[in-house]
Amino acid sequence: MPTLHVEFFEGRTVEQKRALARELTEACVRVLGGSADSVDVIFRDVKREDWATGGVLWSDKAAAKPASS
Amino acid sequence: MPTLHVEFFEGRTVEQKRALARELTEACVRVLGGSADSVDVIFRDVKREDWATGGVLWSDKAAAKPASS
Amino acid sequence: MPTLHVEFFEGRTVEQKRALARELTEACVRVLGGSADSVDVIFRDVKREDWATGGVLWSDKAAAKPASS
Amino acid sequence: MPTLHVEFFEGRTVEQKRALARELTEACVRVLGGSADSVDVIFRDVKREDWATGGVLWSDKAAAKPASS
Amino acid sequence: MPTLHVEFFEGRTVEQKRALARELTEACVRVLGGSADSVDVIFRDVKREDWATGGVLWSDKAAAKPASS
Amino acid sequence: MPTLHVEFFEGRTVEQKRALARELTEACVRVLGGSADSVDVIFRDVKREDWATGGVLWSDKAAAKPASS
Repeated sequence: MPTLHVEFFEGRTVEQKRALARELTEACVRVLGGSADSVDVIFRDVKREDWATGGVLWSDKAAAKPASS
Repeated sequence: MPTLHVEFFEGRTVEQKRALARELTEACVRVLGGSADSVDVIFRDVKREDWATGGVLWSDKAAAKPASS
Repeated sequence: MPTLHVEFFEGRTVEQKRALARELTEACVRVLGGSADSVDVIFRDVKREDWATGGVLWSDKAAAKPASS
Repeated sequence: MPTLHVEFFEGRTVEQKRALARELTEACVRVLGGSADSVDVIFRDVKREDWATGGVLWSDKAAAKPASS
Repeated sequence: MPTLHVEFFEGRTVEQKRALARELTEACVRVLGGSADSVDVIFRDVKREDWATGGVLWSDKAAAKPASS
Repeated sequence: MPTLHVEFFEGRTVEQKRALARELTEACVRVLGGSADSVDVIFRDVKREDWATGGVLWSDKAAAKPASS
């Protein structure tokens, strides 16, 4: 039944999403019990211009230095 | 005042969204009372590669068998 | 696969939630097809002091006139 | 630590997002204390065909009269 | 139409929520235009045991040093 | 920067949340790179009467058979 919504910067590959979905699901089963089939993981790609930390868009920060995640 | 966020696989037509928004709103009014104008419905299309159940992306499941919703 | 998050003011009864979950699910199946079992509905009760419209908390509006939903 | 998710109709410029992120962050710091760096703001552009009020998609309302926000 | 969901640690007073709702709404109107009445702000109090940064619950960090927001 | 929202049935212990936050964060770092400090995990406990699958509240299903997650 656990449902995970994961927001991160756009640019992840399908291979990364595939691996992450599997590992997050395994972590849920390991810690919470239950079956893997009851775990949903939903990703949302966020553009750097749609995420701000400290009041500054990451697309603007990135002009100065690359953001690592 | 009820606000509904609806996540489903991308590929729904505008006709489906139009009908679903109307029916969900009518259900809220019927059950909760209040006016239809106080109900907001927000849809989010999710790609099959962005949704995993049981640790497997639906885009990978779909390679084996088509997903029905 | 559709997942609905429903936010509304606290105070709904379990009977209302039961009826609303059933009707929202039926609407999804009717419009989108698929099986009822693939539909999840998650409610969140929100206190009037945690919801503002027009910059005013509903707990403050309620002091002047009762909010109907 | 405050995290704000902001949903609005698509069509805002990066300049508007930049200004809004800054002002929302400043409001949090002013009212809650803490540092600006602990505030995250995440925007989500919503198409008018993905948002309904009163059971009617805004893309349909817009055919009759332009929606102002 | 902008809808803001604000998550922060539990413990804010109603006075802080009242002020924050007003200031966030004013910021939206100032930057985006439109009327204040079209802005919804929804708060969610999160317990320190329900929020982790760096893999550590804030309720555990707090044992070492107080968290400022 | 990844932010995970995890919804599950209420009743998890702090020990489970602590372990799950750590494991989910480690999975993000392993698959996506970046530092653990950039990962936020936010839990939300959902009552069985606030979650329906197939149009039936889990609090009603539970009367017939216990739900395992």
